[in-house]
Amino acid sequence: MKLHLVNQRLFSTANLISMIKLRASSFSTFSSKREGGVSMVQGASRGLGLEFVKQLLVRNSQEHVIATCRNPNTAAGLIELKKKFSERLHIQKLDLTIDSTIEDCAKAIAEKHGYLNLLVNASGILSIPDVIQPETTLTKVERSSLLLAYEVNAVGPILVTKHMWPLLKAGGGNGSERDVAVVANISARVGSIGDNRLGGWHSYRASKTALNQLTKCVAVEFARKKDPIICILLHPGTVDTDLSKPFQKNVPKDKLFTKEFSVGRLLGIIDSSKSHDNGKFFDWDHKEIVW
Amino acid sequence: MKLHLVNQRLFSTANLISMIKLRASSFSTFSSKREGGVSMVQGASRGLGLEFVKQLLVRNSQEHVIATCRNPNTAAGLIELKKKFSERLHIQKLDLTIDSTIEDCAKAIAEKHGYLNLLVNASGILSIPDVIQPETTLTKVERSSLLLAYEVNAVGPILVTKHMWPLLKAGGGNGSERDVAVVANISARVGSIGDNRLGGWHSYRASKTALNQLTKCVAVEFARKKDPIICILLHPGTVDTDLSKPFQKNVPKDKLFTKEFSVGRLLGIIDSSKSHDNGKFFDWDHKEIVW
Repeated sequence: MKLHLVNQRLFSTANLISMIKLRASSFSTFSSKREGGVSMVQGASRGLGLEFVKQLLVRNSQEHVIATCRNPNTAAGLIELKKKFSERLHIQKLDLTIDSTIEDCAKAIAEKHGYLNLLVNASGILSIPDVIQPETTLTKVERSSLLLAYEVNAVGPILVTKHMWPLLKAGGGNGSERDVAVVANISARVGSIGDNRLGGWHSYRASKTALNQLTKCVAVEFARKKDPIICILLHPGTVDTDLSKPFQKNVPKDKLFTKEFSVGRLLGIIDSSKSHDNGKFFDWDHKEIVW
Repeated sequence: MKLHLVNQRLFSTANLISMIKLRASSFSTFSSKREGGVSMVQGASRGLGLEFVKQLLVRNSQEHVIATCRNPNTAAGLIELKKKFSERLHIQKLDLTIDSTIEDCAKAIAEKHGYLNLLVNASGILSIPDVIQPETTLTKVERSSLLLAYEVNAVGPILVTKHMWPLLKAGGGNGSERDVAVVANISARVGSIGDNRLGGWHSYRASKTALNQLTKCVAVEFARKKDPIICILLHPGTVDTDLSKPFQKNVPKDKLFTKEFSVGRLLGIIDSSKSHDNGKFFDWDHKEIVW
């Protein structure tokens, strides 16, 4: 039966749930789940995502980490890490713009691990030369940039959450330090409407604002269904990554964080998360940000 | 020179601005602008948009109204109104998903009127059988619905605002009852993140939340440039229109407004708008809504 499900070409959420139940029945209780738990970082080839993977692998010698990216074969940082953590690091292809890769990734995790305790949606798009640039004025706002930023920064993370939902429900906090599974969506302070005093960056801002709303929708549903999962939004600060590189010149030195610092703080927030944090939007310093 | 600009096939914002300046020079002062002013309602074939057109035409016997819709030839409500208000109602084709129709509309207004005092973005998408449905759970969230709602409810109104900007700047409040030109974007309370207690309706909610953020970006820029324009967001309440029809059964009778009532209230808010209202989000009762 299990093999039959695994080999099916047509994959569905119903199949995934069956697969998870089958695996769950092989554990006597939830507490028998693998010590250290299973975490997934979506958008892990570089920047914050890669740093999340590193710190998750290092901080707990038993935690398994699924790192996803568009092109596993060219993800140099992950390939390097795999040499050191060959047993506990699992690299999976996932392209936010292609539904089937998200579904296939969920299927692979269901087969191999059967559950998840943490999902970090770390991917993000801000600027790509000749493709998308943060707008400095309304006259530079274009349909293509608005739609691209929305698809990558808002639609993608929510579809990943949708497909990982059964795995997170199966995992809860069990095997990890927490009471609940956590979906941590990397948002940004510029996604706050109440805090928007400078304007500009229309495509990026609107996509992160929409991500905040979508995350809130998901948080409300998780709570209503009493699922052992919470969903939080995190602002990493301005971090020295490829994403922020072209926009660092006006950032005071003490406000430009290293990846190590920012991710360390965000992991601290994730690990101390409780049910009452569900649906909240925190900065790196654990202060709530207005919507 | 004017004809040359008008006949150019390649239209640009620079051309539009030249055209407006040319027309502006034919007025001795701003105060010589046509009494009653010029208003535009985008998404005017039915529902709230059509009602805005009616009330604008009726309340001021000198106001000119540009009503836009995807198919002027089949817009029965507008065609009927045109019989009565043949001089002051101007029906223009505008499809939010096609940039050139937005540009052509701006060009036509520049030629005929030279300015705008009011832009109401009234179009909106919530449900179309077999195309898009408000989601009742995360498992029903699909990429196509998220993107479609975003393009129609958020991207469209902002691109219209972009292309009408020079016209609104030329118009200001002059000729109307107000000190400033107004961009009124029809949002919805369900677009508020802080007020989201029920979850669901992911695509619609996220698109309206993004519209709120984009409107805030525009408001900030209008203020910084000291343009005589403000941008506001309006929640019409639950109104008895085709949009809300499938979702009215749980709405208490006294909370289901007629179009006449809701648009009357919203026009009251628009007409009393001052500079300090720029970037705010009001319900039909003129109360501010949290982001």
